Amino acid sequence: MATDTAASADAADESPGYTRPTIDVAELRRVLDGRYAEVRDLVRTNLVDHASVLEDAETMATDRFRDRVRDLLVTMARTGQTGMGFPEEYGGGGDIGASVAAFETLAYGDLSVLVKAGVQFGLFGGAILQLGTERHHDAYLRDLITGNVLGCFAMTEVGHGSNVQALGTVATYDPDAEEFVVTTTDPSARKDWIGNAARHAELAVVFAQLEVAGERHGVHALVVPLRRDGRVLDGITIEDDGLKMGLNGVDNGRITFDGVRVPRENLLNQFADVTPDGRYESPIDNPDRRFFTMLGTLVQGRVCVGGAGINASKVALTLAVTYADRRRQFNATSEDREELLLDYGLHQRRLLPLLARTCALHFAQEVVAQELHEVFSRTEAPEEGENDHRRRELESLAAGVKALGTWHATRTIQECREACGGQGYRALNRFAALKADTDVFTTFEGDNHVLLQLVAKGLLTDYANEFEDMDQFAMVRFVAGVAVETVIERTSVHTLIERVRDVLPGGDEWDQEAGLLDPDYHRMMLRFREEHMLSGVARRLKRGIDGGQDAGEVFSRVQDHVVAAARAHVERQVLDAFVDKVASLEDGDTKVALTLLCDLFALSTIEADRAWFLEHGRLSSQRSKAISREVNGLCRKVRPLAGDLVDAFGVPPELLRSPELVG
Amino acid sequence: MATDTAASADAADESPGYTRPTIDVAELRRVLDGRYAEVRDLVRTNLVDHASVLEDAETMATDRFRDRVRDLLVTMARTGQTGMGFPEEYGGGGDIGASVAAFETLAYGDLSVLVKAGVQFGLFGGAILQLGTERHHDAYLRDLITGNVLGCFAMTEVGHGSNVQALGTVATYDPDAEEFVVTTTDPSARKDWIGNAARHAELAVVFAQLEVAGERHGVHALVVPLRRDGRVLDGITIEDDGLKMGLNGVDNGRITFDGVRVPRENLLNQFADVTPDGRYESPIDNPDRRFFTMLGTLVQGRVCVGGAGINASKVALTLAVTYADRRRQFNATSEDREELLLDYGLHQRRLLPLLARTCALHFAQEVVAQELHEVFSRTEAPEEGENDHRRRELESLAAGVKALGTWHATRTIQECREACGGQGYRALNRFAALKADTDVFTTFEGDNHVLLQLVAKGLLTDYANEFEDMDQFAMVRFVAGVAVETVIERTSVHTLIERVRDVLPGGDEWDQEAGLLDPDYHRMMLRFREEHMLSGVARRLKRGIDGGQDAGEVFSRVQDHVVAAARAHVERQVLDAFVDKVASLEDGDTKVALTLLCDLFALSTIEADRAWFLEHGRLSSQRSKAISREVNGLCRKVRPLAGDLVDAFGVPPELLRSPELVG
Repeated sequence: MATDTAASADAADESPGYTRPTIDVAELRRVLDGRYAEVRDLVRTNLVDHASVLEDAETMATDRFRDRVRDLLVTMARTGQTGMGFPEEYGGGGDIGASVAAFETLAYGDLSVLVKAGVQFGLFGGAILQLGTERHHDAYLRDLITGNVLGCFAMTEVGHGSNVQALGTVATYDPDAEEFVVTTTDPSARKDWIGNAARHAELAVVFAQLEVAGERHGVHALVVPLRRDGRVLDGITIEDDGLKMGLNGVDNGRITFDGVRVPRENLLNQFADVTPDGRYESPIDNPDRRFFTMLGTLVQGRVCVGGAGINASKVALTLAVTYADRRRQFNATSEDREELLLDYGLHQRRLLPLLARTCALHFAQEVVAQELHEVFSRTEAPEEGENDHRRRELESLAAGVKALGTWHATRTIQECREACGGQGYRALNRFAALKADTDVFTTFEGDNHVLLQLVAKGLLTDYANEFEDMDQFAMVRFVAGVAVETVIERTSVHTLIERVRDVLPGGDEWDQEAGLLDPDYHRMMLRFREEHMLSGVARRLKRGIDGGQDAGEVFSRVQDHVVAAARAHVERQVLDAFVDKVASLEDGDTKVALTLLCDLFALSTIEADRAWFLEHGRLSSQRSKAISREVNGLCRKVRPLAGDLVDAFGVPPELLRSPELVG
Repeated sequence: MATDTAASADAADESPGYTRPTIDVAELRRVLDGRYAEVRDLVRTNLVDHASVLEDAETMATDRFRDRVRDLLVTMARTGQTGMGFPEEYGGGGDIGASVAAFETLAYGDLSVLVKAGVQFGLFGGAILQLGTERHHDAYLRDLITGNVLGCFAMTEVGHGSNVQALGTVATYDPDAEEFVVTTTDPSARKDWIGNAARHAELAVVFAQLEVAGERHGVHALVVPLRRDGRVLDGITIEDDGLKMGLNGVDNGRITFDGVRVPRENLLNQFADVTPDGRYESPIDNPDRRFFTMLGTLVQGRVCVGGAGINASKVALTLAVTYADRRRQFNATSEDREELLLDYGLHQRRLLPLLARTCALHFAQEVVAQELHEVFSRTEAPEEGENDHRRRELESLAAGVKALGTWHATRTIQECREACGGQGYRALNRFAALKADTDVFTTFEGDNHVLLQLVAKGLLTDYANEFEDMDQFAMVRFVAGVAVETVIERTSVHTLIERVRDVLPGGDEWDQEAGLLDPDYHRMMLRFREEHMLSGVARRLKRGIDGGQDAGEVFSRVQDHVVAAARAHVERQVLDAFVDKVASLEDGDTKVALTLLCDLFALSTIEADRAWFLEHGRLSSQRSKAISREVNGLCRKVRPLAGDLVDAFGVPPELLRSPELVG
């Protein structure tokens, strides 16, 4: 990409000893693409081959576009692109990490295709794989991998949304017929927003309260046929959710079951089963724990949505940065020639910290995908408890990166659209579709606020295993008991400073003396914030309960702190991922460039929450202002690199459209 | 609206002496609707009569929907609703304030209708009225008020966007024919995004560089016929801008002029004229000043867009608050019953400060609309200079409220959508259209960032009249000269504290001792921030210039401070408007309720920028934390009132749609 950087070169605030790196775009892309570069390139090629779907999304009538997306999905499935996470013996690729990389890369293209793929291969296929056993694998995997059989994932109900454990559909075992009878007990138990349901799915994995011999055993999943030869089966009513803000290539629908019978064998019986004569059996006694274990196996969906949000941000940034590096507006340095948008300090401030955060989230996503791969690819038996702990950590990180990644997408796409002015408003450009399609990412696959509360619960669980199986309110009541002392002790300011002192010399003044660009300083600031916030939450919970308030009220009052603590935790993990990645690189210009971005991410993150650091005595006014100046300086250093940086994301030009912006 | 507030009543943190007010919805609506309540009700009724347009926006093909919107516009014009700002002798209502109220209220309905009305009656009609003279009024006003003649406002060009003064279309006077020849000199001078152009407009007000006898006189406006009997006239090429993110009922297009001739009389000659023999005449000598004077008469467009953004926010809040007051999710206070969303502290935090800010912006909008009405309704001659100053203040306030009001809309609609979870994603609800349609508000009628820079320029102009006619870079060079000393002097911390001391006793410690709910404290905090920031900008500009940097570079570096100072200024004006309104009310429950909202707006505004106050020694850590606690407390007090508060916005239920949310 040709970049006119003469003016900005003079402008950069380049400190003595600093030499501006020259970016080798191909090398940087190799670093970003990581071990699955080939997989990502396969998906890029497939997306370019079918780039016309971006235009079809605008122009086709809804049902025609839905069929177009279905056909495209099946076509892509034939390339192996969508089946990488399934076992090789069923025709899959046997590589979970590859399947995440492939899915993420789909986010460069039309997002209905991505979501339809997520429903078919992630949710439906994932449930069959993870919750089912050999009989289900044999029956369904081969056909679902090729797209010969399409399915849906019927979990969400209109009445309960994110509170899955409370859903109302019931599956009652009838020992005489050796069948389950699936029933929608009342209108609030109707399944809603089920992707693939309105038009294409032949099968559904249905989540229902399992009732055996009059006793309820909590939420379980069963395979229920929905259609045969395109006809909806008896006892099943399907309504179309109709037009949506975006993602109109996905046929979301509502499903009602009126005494639908399926064979006993349709229960996905990895974690629980019912014997023919009607005895319920599960290796996990505690029903809450069983529920969370089952749900935990579906974590890949969240990992994928987080990655999709991050990659959608890259598309928006590619457009906005490229445009700002070409578009001139107002005379600034000369009477004759208008200035490039990206040479304005404010424009740098608007876009470049978002670019840095995108890279940070990219590497955090790489960590979570790798961890997912390792945890779910293990064949040897783990040590007692080890696997549990590791899965919990994975679930927490997946939830956190999903929340931060999708909020980041909403914010970045919006800022990039505004930074392209009126031109960004044309449907021909990608922004309209990006905004509309990604909007629901923040609330599906787990509402982001609910997910951060799960992260917080996990953090407290680290102190007391008893938390693990509790819902958030039981947790509140409990925290006043045993756990809070530990939490407070571990995270007291004194202890924190002790630990920080080991890393940064200088005693209590460490944070006033460390270099602003020292990654240890960045880490320690975010670590301090995280633990201090967590301790604050614990203390407040305890105080509330001790003061006689009820748990719900205590929770309500402390809820914003809970979410803030979780966010601080995840941001620290994201920074760790970025710092670790940079540290792993060989010296050279790529490392210099990524170091600039990492510094920019770290300092702009601290800057954004500098009020908290000021309030808690970890920033002086002077140092706080110095950080803002340093962020400006880093923006000026990143500015001449920005065009190459977005090129390294590798969004194929055919997918950018937007002739007025980048054509 | 039935509100189940039993739980929340117990929950509210009600200080001794506080009695929760009972809201009389009708009375509060009277306060909000103000002097134009009747006008607003007329528009509400018209919108309800034609509420089916909301569904048509989803389902109709583009051209059919455009015609539907055009027809609806003409139908509404017949009720007098859209012509209120025009002189009575041409069939208008003769009341500018009423026309703003009517326009704003249109934002409760389909926003293509609003924008089409803005193009026809605000931009096109406004230009004829303000820039034209009697001959133009006689020729066009009567027909454009009824919608018999549709027109467009051809200002924006693809190459220059917000930099209108640099546009490239040329109108050359030919004294032999006594005609102007209008030409698009190169592709970047093509008019773009012109509403009404692609399909309906017969006439255009075209902005072009006026060239007379070989001399350029800057940007002027002329009436140019575009179509006759639906056919585009010779020499004119019109392309369709095609599908957009939203507002697809407005037919935006691109116009190219190839030597199009119009009679001399078509020049809108309020501020400049060309004699038949080709002499240029204007009562305003300075070309920059002439340009800004002409543009200044079009300020009503900005006032209207700001109001539209604020009212669109009310629609979103009505949906989200009503839903949160009905929807239960997760068991909190009891095992049997899930909690109302609005009883969660986090949910209160997400929605209620936005509700408070919406009210604050509403009253600021009332001030700017009233001021517009007074300035443009004056018949007596103003004192020397008085009118100029007042117009500049009006333009600044209009720009500021437009910027803050439209950003607020983007943010509020997004938060409200997320707060409604997946249900908010259905096109049947209003969010999809609200998001897509309002998205461009932040960048049209002046990009918000550019507008805030105009506000900042105005603030510096108050110190030195010489600024007035300069562009921003000339201003930068100038500021290093005469003005900066005055600015710094007037806003030095010492002087500020002196002035603050007059209001709040307690000397330098005033801000540590005043009551957190004292409106004088709120005002003084925002006043201090504004003036301190302004002084900082001036000082940085001077330092940069004195240091030998070029003006463009100095400006680029200080640009984020410039925008921050302008934002601080506008936020203070918004607070003043809210405080003044509350002070004007008679004692009673309505006043108590609005006082809570005003306190919540003020403290959440200070809280959002508390880092700045901490950095500048105007908040201690303790007091900063106390403010956050107080914001939480105010949220709890506002919570039981929230349902009634949004009811008082008076968005007719027929316009809310959204059966799953509020049905």
